[in-house]
Amino acid sequence: MTGALPPLMRALELREGQPAPVLVERPLPVPRRGEVLVRIAAAPINPNDLMFLRDEYEIRKPRPTVPGFEGAGTVVASGGGFVARMMLGRRVACAAGDGDGTWAEYAVVPALRCVPLRRDVELEQGATLLTNPLTAWVLAARARRERHRGVVLTAAAGALGRMLERLLRRQGLAVVSIVRRPAQVEALRADGAEHVLDSSADGFAGELRDRAARLGATLLLDAVGGETTGRVLAAMPQGSVARVYGMLSNAPCELDPAELVFRGKRVEGFTMYDWLRTTSMLGQLLAVSKVQRRVRDVLATRVQARLPLADHAQALAKAVAGANDGKVLFVPA
Amino acid sequence: MTGALPPLMRALELREGQPAPVLVERPLPVPRRGEVLVRIAAAPINPNDLMFLRDEYEIRKPRPTVPGFEGAGTVVASGGGFVARMMLGRRVACAAGDGDGTWAEYAVVPALRCVPLRRDVELEQGATLLTNPLTAWVLAARARRERHRGVVLTAAAGALGRMLERLLRRQGLAVVSIVRRPAQVEALRADGAEHVLDSSADGFAGELRDRAARLGATLLLDAVGGETTGRVLAAMPQGSVARVYGMLSNAPCELDPAELVFRGKRVEGFTMYDWLRTTSMLGQLLAVSKVQRRVRDVLATRVQARLPLADHAQALAKAVAGANDGKVLFVPA
Repeated sequence: MTGALPPLMRALELREGQPAPVLVERPLPVPRRGEVLVRIAAAPINPNDLMFLRDEYEIRKPRPTVPGFEGAGTVVASGGGFVARMMLGRRVACAAGDGDGTWAEYAVVPALRCVPLRRDVELEQGATLLTNPLTAWVLAARARRERHRGVVLTAAAGALGRMLERLLRRQGLAVVSIVRRPAQVEALRADGAEHVLDSSADGFAGELRDRAARLGATLLLDAVGGETTGRVLAAMPQGSVARVYGMLSNAPCELDPAELVFRGKRVEGFTMYDWLRTTSMLGQLLAVSKVQRRVRDVLATRVQARLPLADHAQALAKAVAGANDGKVLFVPA
Repeated sequence: MTGALPPLMRALELREGQPAPVLVERPLPVPRRGEVLVRIAAAPINPNDLMFLRDEYEIRKPRPTVPGFEGAGTVVASGGGFVARMMLGRRVACAAGDGDGTWAEYAVVPALRCVPLRRDVELEQGATLLTNPLTAWVLAARARRERHRGVVLTAAAGALGRMLERLLRRQGLAVVSIVRRPAQVEALRADGAEHVLDSSADGFAGELRDRAARLGATLLLDAVGGETTGRVLAAMPQGSVARVYGMLSNAPCELDPAELVFRGKRVEGFTMYDWLRTTSMLGQLLAVSKVQRRVRDVLATRVQARLPLADHAQALAKAVAGANDGKVLFVPA
């Protein structure tokens, strides 16, 4: 235990048939063996949270439930077990387990889903560590391992897209960033991105074809789906692969079969859940450690707003409207 | 030379802007070094020929040109070179090169695209050897190498689909054959197929899901494209792969991105052109030799009609109408 704990906490609660959460008081949850209680300092609103609210996400939980898939804070109680006891008193980034999530003053999470934060990583950066920065790191590591010379990114103006661009560029790969509005072209160029294409511009497909061929960009990291996947992949060189890791368009990927049959292209998916399932604990810790060393520069998350739980309607509205302006964080404690 | 050769031959000719070929007389073509002249005994009308006539096929040739991508006959002249001289006088299956095709009394083809036929293989079976039977053989070999326990086939009532079903079943894999009409279910069952599903029937998706899970069918061999690819793949187990080798629907493959991202499924293409490019000459000869030993049973091609070149309109109409009733062959010589 670290200090005295209150009997009640405030939390956002999602109820059956209602897409908007409500602010409630709940008894402080009690960690079981292998679990810890985290006093949440910050928890982001991510795209998968928004899908979860609409009950459109892959992961569904019985309601009522507390949303929020990740956050950061201080471990204030352990339910027992070696790892849980080791975490006591530490500042951690954490990912929610099967039960309640992080949009609350306190959250019980499995100790194995907590990562102690380096001293120089702020809780605010730690709160978003396990989704975007870690995903960017893993996607980039795989791109290097597969020896692609260049990568094409869709949704390149989003938080993860911009991290990927900076990280891949720093690691020596050529990156073609695809955005949907002229203003985003300028923002990315100001950030140092070299090859930024606006998919709404005339001649987009031809320009993409030229750049992808010249730069040897044979990997598409696609967060959009719908007709975008096939349209972009068709402009890439023979043998290119599309790795779909998001579905922002909420529409089926459309692919010209001739691109598969005659141009040797292929399409696959990526999720961190698979990475976690297939990567040893040591491999995971090493990756997270490397990511922590970069959250102050290439893997930094921009924050557009920090709001208390009570302002949840405003926070969600901001998150829906301005996904490219930086993360919206709940700061419960 | 084998016997005296005439100065002229009859051939079908495809002209600029006209999808229907016309019967013409042409000078007998002369093989160059590395080429042979084949007196064509039989040449099939395949789906890729029909696409070629509409100028929708991946391979395009300057017109006027003689269509026909494969055939069989006797080598009656050599243009010189070791392989070409070796072929002289032999009965061969052959594939057209970059120039004129096989819908003619005589065709010049590269000697390396000729395969001597075993004595027990009739010219009529040889004429279709290098498309369907060889493709079925290569697709099945890859399915075994990748250790799939079971395979799902679309367009399973077609010539290639039925060969694939027989071959895979003979090799010990479970096969789920998907057809589009109730009558086809009976035809395939009469042929020995065990798991035949009619995609127009109520409850198709659920039935497919059950069979695929029970049989461990984790490979989809898809000749259709369009919404079929994604609809079938979605009913298959976690981690399944769709290998698209045809595009009968002439529509983009549609895929739920959640199947890629969260269920680890992937989509790729297959063409024999790639197999030829990446397989050694010895490997190709071994495969063709194995295929020839099976064209009398599991890899037999059914023939629905044998017509002279002059009856091309009737032949093409039959081929378009009755793709599942057996091959239509031109018998020029």
